[in-house]
Amino acid sequence: MEEEQSPRLAGEPATEPGPAPELECKNEDGVEDPEDPESTGGGSGNGNGISSLEQPLLKRSTTLTASHLAIVGAKVSHIESLDYEIIENDLFKHDWRSRSNVEVLQYIFLKWAMAFLVGLLTGVIASLINLAIENITGLKMLHMVNLVRERRYWAGFFYFAGVNFALTFVAAVLCVVFAPTAAGPGIPEIKAYLNGVDTPNMFGAPQLIVKARRFCPIIGSIGAVSSGMDLGKEGPLVHIGACLANLLSQGGEGRWRLRWRWLRYFNNDRDRRDLITCGASSGVCAAFRAPVGGVLFALEEVATWWRSALLWRTFFSTATVVVVLRGFIEVCRNGRCGMFGEGGLILFDVSDVTVRYHVGDLLPVTLVGVLGGVLGALYNHVLHQVLRLYNLINAKGRLAKLALALAVCVFTSAGLYLLPFAVPCTPCDPAFSDACPTVGKSGNFKQFNCPDGYYNDLASLLHATNTDATRNIFSTGTAGEFRLDSLLIFFAIYCVLGLFTFGIAVPSGLFLPIILMGSAYGRILALVLARFVHIDHGLYAVLGAAALMSGSMRMTVSLCVIFLELTNNLLLLPITMFVLLIAKTVGDAFNPSIYEIILDLKGLPFLEPKPETWMKDLTVGELAAAKPRAVTLQVVEKVSTVVEVLRSTPHNGFPVLDRPRPGVSELHGLVLRSHLMAVLRKRWFLAEKRRTEEWEAREKFSSTELAEKAGNVDEVQLSPEELDMYIDLHPFTNTTPYTVVETMSVAKAVVLFRTCALRHMLIIPKFQGAEISPIVGMLTRQDLRAHNILGAFPHLANKRKVH
Amino acid sequence: MEEEQSPRLAGEPATEPGPAPELECKNEDGVEDPEDPESTGGGSGNGNGISSLEQPLLKRSTTLTASHLAIVGAKVSHIESLDYEIIENDLFKHDWRSRSNVEVLQYIFLKWAMAFLVGLLTGVIASLINLAIENITGLKMLHMVNLVRERRYWAGFFYFAGVNFALTFVAAVLCVVFAPTAAGPGIPEIKAYLNGVDTPNMFGAPQLIVKARRFCPIIGSIGAVSSGMDLGKEGPLVHIGACLANLLSQGGEGRWRLRWRWLRYFNNDRDRRDLITCGASSGVCAAFRAPVGGVLFALEEVATWWRSALLWRTFFSTATVVVVLRGFIEVCRNGRCGMFGEGGLILFDVSDVTVRYHVGDLLPVTLVGVLGGVLGALYNHVLHQVLRLYNLINAKGRLAKLALALAVCVFTSAGLYLLPFAVPCTPCDPAFSDACPTVGKSGNFKQFNCPDGYYNDLASLLHATNTDATRNIFSTGTAGEFRLDSLLIFFAIYCVLGLFTFGIAVPSGLFLPIILMGSAYGRILALVLARFVHIDHGLYAVLGAAALMSGSMRMTVSLCVIFLELTNNLLLLPITMFVLLIAKTVGDAFNPSIYEIILDLKGLPFLEPKPETWMKDLTVGELAAAKPRAVTLQVVEKVSTVVEVLRSTPHNGFPVLDRPRPGVSELHGLVLRSHLMAVLRKRWFLAEKRRTEEWEAREKFSSTELAEKAGNVDEVQLSPEELDMYIDLHPFTNTTPYTVVETMSVAKAVVLFRTCALRHMLIIPKFQGAEISPIVGMLTRQDLRAHNILGAFPHLANKRKVH
Repeated sequence: MEEEQSPRLAGEPATEPGPAPELECKNEDGVEDPEDPESTGGGSGNGNGISSLEQPLLKRSTTLTASHLAIVGAKVSHIESLDYEIIENDLFKHDWRSRSNVEVLQYIFLKWAMAFLVGLLTGVIASLINLAIENITGLKMLHMVNLVRERRYWAGFFYFAGVNFALTFVAAVLCVVFAPTAAGPGIPEIKAYLNGVDTPNMFGAPQLIVKARRFCPIIGSIGAVSSGMDLGKEGPLVHIGACLANLLSQGGEGRWRLRWRWLRYFNNDRDRRDLITCGASSGVCAAFRAPVGGVLFALEEVATWWRSALLWRTFFSTATVVVVLRGFIEVCRNGRCGMFGEGGLILFDVSDVTVRYHVGDLLPVTLVGVLGGVLGALYNHVLHQVLRLYNLINAKGRLAKLALALAVCVFTSAGLYLLPFAVPCTPCDPAFSDACPTVGKSGNFKQFNCPDGYYNDLASLLHATNTDATRNIFSTGTAGEFRLDSLLIFFAIYCVLGLFTFGIAVPSGLFLPIILMGSAYGRILALVLARFVHIDHGLYAVLGAAALMSGSMRMTVSLCVIFLELTNNLLLLPITMFVLLIAKTVGDAFNPSIYEIILDLKGLPFLEPKPETWMKDLTVGELAAAKPRAVTLQVVEKVSTVVEVLRSTPHNGFPVLDRPRPGVSELHGLVLRSHLMAVLRKRWFLAEKRRTEEWEAREKFSSTELAEKAGNVDEVQLSPEELDMYIDLHPFTNTTPYTVVETMSVAKAVVLFRTCALRHMLIIPKFQGAEISPIVGMLTRQDLRAHNILGAFPHLANKRKVH
Repeated sequence: MEEEQSPRLAGEPATEPGPAPELECKNEDGVEDPEDPESTGGGSGNGNGISSLEQPLLKRSTTLTASHLAIVGAKVSHIESLDYEIIENDLFKHDWRSRSNVEVLQYIFLKWAMAFLVGLLTGVIASLINLAIENITGLKMLHMVNLVRERRYWAGFFYFAGVNFALTFVAAVLCVVFAPTAAGPGIPEIKAYLNGVDTPNMFGAPQLIVKARRFCPIIGSIGAVSSGMDLGKEGPLVHIGACLANLLSQGGEGRWRLRWRWLRYFNNDRDRRDLITCGASSGVCAAFRAPVGGVLFALEEVATWWRSALLWRTFFSTATVVVVLRGFIEVCRNGRCGMFGEGGLILFDVSDVTVRYHVGDLLPVTLVGVLGGVLGALYNHVLHQVLRLYNLINAKGRLAKLALALAVCVFTSAGLYLLPFAVPCTPCDPAFSDACPTVGKSGNFKQFNCPDGYYNDLASLLHATNTDATRNIFSTGTAGEFRLDSLLIFFAIYCVLGLFTFGIAVPSGLFLPIILMGSAYGRILALVLARFVHIDHGLYAVLGAAALMSGSMRMTVSLCVIFLELTNNLLLLPITMFVLLIAKTVGDAFNPSIYEIILDLKGLPFLEPKPETWMKDLTVGELAAAKPRAVTLQVVEKVSTVVEVLRSTPHNGFPVLDRPRPGVSELHGLVLRSHLMAVLRKRWFLAEKRRTEEWEAREKFSSTELAEKAGNVDEVQLSPEELDMYIDLHPFTNTTPYTVVETMSVAKAVVLFRTCALRHMLIIPKFQGAEISPIVGMLTRQDLRAHNILGAFPHLANKRKVH
């Protein structure tokens, strides 16, 4: 069913004068606090506000019986849903019936070509970002270390902090001014998008300074990571991959937009969703050089709907990414790209250690998992509080955001620079195979402030890119390399940084901070439990990282494969699985995963896979009765009524009723706001009330026009004569919407809604007669969210919740 | 929603006198030919036969208007569907409402404990099977080689062939006599089961000799693999894993069945489905020692419905399997288990080769993929024909089956023993790191009939278990080890064996035969293209195997991970991905995957994920009009009517109508045959026509009783007085069945049916009045299969099919 084109529904919110200021604020914020009435895009009071706004209209028109806003007391937000359902109206049916085999082949080819392009571009951009980061950081470190060796410590500090400040400034200004949605990891938004939530401005809106926005995540990510802050580039890379996918699915943007005729088959939410899934997995693949891990990450964490065909296409994208990365590494071999190109396709290779299992390892490994779960849950909890605090700060305006980012940068720089002075120098052990001590960017044994023959183990970890630091702490066969106090300092500072860096207004990923924290924790545990530990300390660092990741993100298979592809040690796999399972179990006992926390903070209406148990006690009919009645249209309707309905309600779908015989009213289907707007813009009006022939609409409306967003109804100026004419909705009405009978339980309705990826679900009466309306109500995503239902039916909250 | 219990529906077919002989034959056959009218479980004629059987009944009763058999002309089979939908009737609602938190925790614990047990037992059984196979084969080979070294060639041959014959005899007799469903790979049946098809006798039926059946796949697999035939143990292992899961979900069987009260929560199709998924992945994991690959195999190939929670539990099972396998390997180190225990956790380790990519490799690697796809498709095509031929042979009875299996065994033995004599001996190259020549079971350079200092390269491949043969042909750094003519002979004989061994009546897997064929093909290609090949020939063998697997089975990500876990060479991964993608694309251009072919041959009504394009041109109302009307019941119904309905129709669900007011008829819900049977068995009848209170049914029926299978209606003997009484269906009626309006397109109905895992889908009228029935019809799995619809609407077949 992939080949159909479902015209896109309104991504733009309709006019909704009430909550506009809040919306503006929400657009700007990366993270929004639902419990803070100031920043919520519509609290309970807001919902009532809209209802009261609607009230006068209801009195004016008889057709406009009521509105189907979210249930009273529920969170109302301007966030729209996506149309993953197939809109089977006359025009669409004619469109796919008339599609030739050549066009279908073009479409299939296009899908694969796009998946290839997404992989190619993501790979190229990821390589360029890496190239820039490695070179900037390398040069920065080189100069700083030279100043330190000349014992000009303060000059070194100011140079280091100054460069970092400048880099952060660039990144933060870009994000704050041009692309607020580029801040943060991007993964929760993409997760919500693939769940059917049209995250506003997620993939860029043309009205803003487009090119700057486009490059914001790229340059922002380079600046932020190069500045030495505790953030990764994997979140931004996933975001970049998804943005590229979105861009390609539209054929580009602005002046450079391709206007191929066959690109139109692609201009629908379903195909875009598939491509964005490819983009997200390409991003993960590019970040970790893990093609299978990328696919599994998209499968396990990001995507809501998944099919075998998508698995295959996603795999193709990540394969392309790997080939591109590999190509860049080959080209840049031998220093042809400055300091980029060292290290192979495997980021943190620990395959030189042969893992042997002993029964005695069971206990410390279990401990790694349990503590990892506890720490991960604790991290989630504290980060949640920090993000709420940061929301308050960020809400104060752009300057506050910028100041926050710069403050974190200065604090980070001070910590990274000064802390190595606190630990004593360690003499180089001739048994180490690597060069010792080293000066410059990479290397495991940094000399820093030490005399020749000695190295500063904390500097090895702190004075490096996060990737190099991870590589150092994962290094195997070096049990004595790091002192316990250095590791404790490292762990402490990265815990603090990991908590306070994430929420600032720069593109930031969560993976590397958690890996760094976790690896330090694993290595500390190995040192503490040295007498029980038979496995290499480097592998303990890997296990610690895996445990903390799982404890915070609650992924299993994808993390397992990502770690396998990162470390290339297959024999470690069973232990990794063991640790991941324990950490996830322990973490789940405390709180939800970090992505769920962020989704909730951002107020994105994510639909959970499992309905709550108490939903069985409620029927959809009762749910519909608790909200205003749905606004319906007649199948041949007056222009003035349509305009009024569009103007007075923010809805995106309207049930269409038909009267085949006098006294008989039946449900004809559902019409979309965007299609009504297309009719108004074209002024396709009828002088008398009649049903049109199919060809009349067909020769007037192209599928491209119908795929456009709704836009604002006030843009269309109609004369009083025109308002007195009629519109025939037959050609535009989706005659096959999914329906449920009013006695259906909400639990099963939620299953239907989510598995069939609906946007509107119509409720039909159990018994229908002449005096009964053929439609009981209409449910949307917001109506089916547990939180919103509990707002309207608080007594259900007392029922036990079982997972 | 996992915690609910949905009472199980009739797995046993109801009395259906017409096609009984065909059914019997089908039960016996592993594979059934749909185009052979003799062996079909109901062809077009058969469908009409049932209709004519129904006709008299229709005249007798007014309630029994008609039957909802599959559409005229469609394939009717006795295969039942499974109930994955939640049956929300009063009793069920009361049951989950009254469930305490302790019970819920017990249930959750039980789910995890079962996943653990499945992994544990699968791991133990797989290890024991391996142990037996390695020892039997080893001893067999040792004696045979000794006879050859004494130049007693004929004695060697008869010894070799005789032992193989005996082993095959044991395996085949077990399968033919006791457990016909144990023959073949089992994977297609499990795939169908997880799609909602209750494959008959798949997981054993208690009326047969139970214990023999239970061990049949195990002993059969040992015998068949030890006999040197070209079949693998991975299919049987998957089958064993699934059987174990099924057994555990019922708490055991027969006298040893556990009757824990809380086990009842598990006695439903949905939980069993989840557990069988765990079992299937455990089987793959045990076969390839690939925990992640096992999970992905279940995800990509086997399971139809998938959720994150299941991913995690499956992963837990496979992790357990790996720990068990690892434990056995540790215990059996240093020959403590005879010839078992050599080799580590990685079956075919090729990690000693560092892969370097050259642009020049692109062409030969592409060729590997393209040819692999062509060969895979060709293999599928020829195997299809062979299986059809074998069906004819196997249909002739048990003796024919046995003779076929033994003939294949003799042919195999002759080929394996005699062919090495056809190639000249190769002198040992001192550069080889392995011992050369070797005598005995393992070793890469078998001396066989050669003088000292020489080895027979073909004997190295043919005189070994399939696993050892694969290890030998995958061996790296040995470009000159195998002669081209030896490889060609090997490839040719394994092509023949691979095609003619699969369909015989022993447990047989498809993976290893294809891997063997593919590895030979890859190595031949490497030898032929030697001048263009920069990658090790052993890796080419790996790529060839991957290409052929993908060309035949059409999997991508799971194969990729399985090969990664088999070979432990991460750097090969991008090339493997590339080859897999090409081979799958090429193969898809020719025919469907081998599993789809087998599913089709077996006549299992698998529901494809994608509806056909032409299904948009048909409404469910038209579909329902083409078949007899649904048999409905009144909500308080006469006992005699219920008995008549149950006796005269094979249906498993009946729409229940209600008359709340005179002249008004509305749809109350759907009642299951098994629940009606439970009522009849309990004789829960009412003297007068009245509605019962909820407690009346609740104190009479336990959920365990309602979870039982329907059984035969003739088992219940009712007196004429009882037949004149009434049954209140209120407590048993699922009041929330999924419904579609009659104008819904079949395409969207199929999506609903499959994504929500339905068994019955009710069609309700668009407009409902006093004179109109509240139900238009009912659709089941068979009605929504493309093949069956096209039987009733042949004109739709002309429409283009697009994938």
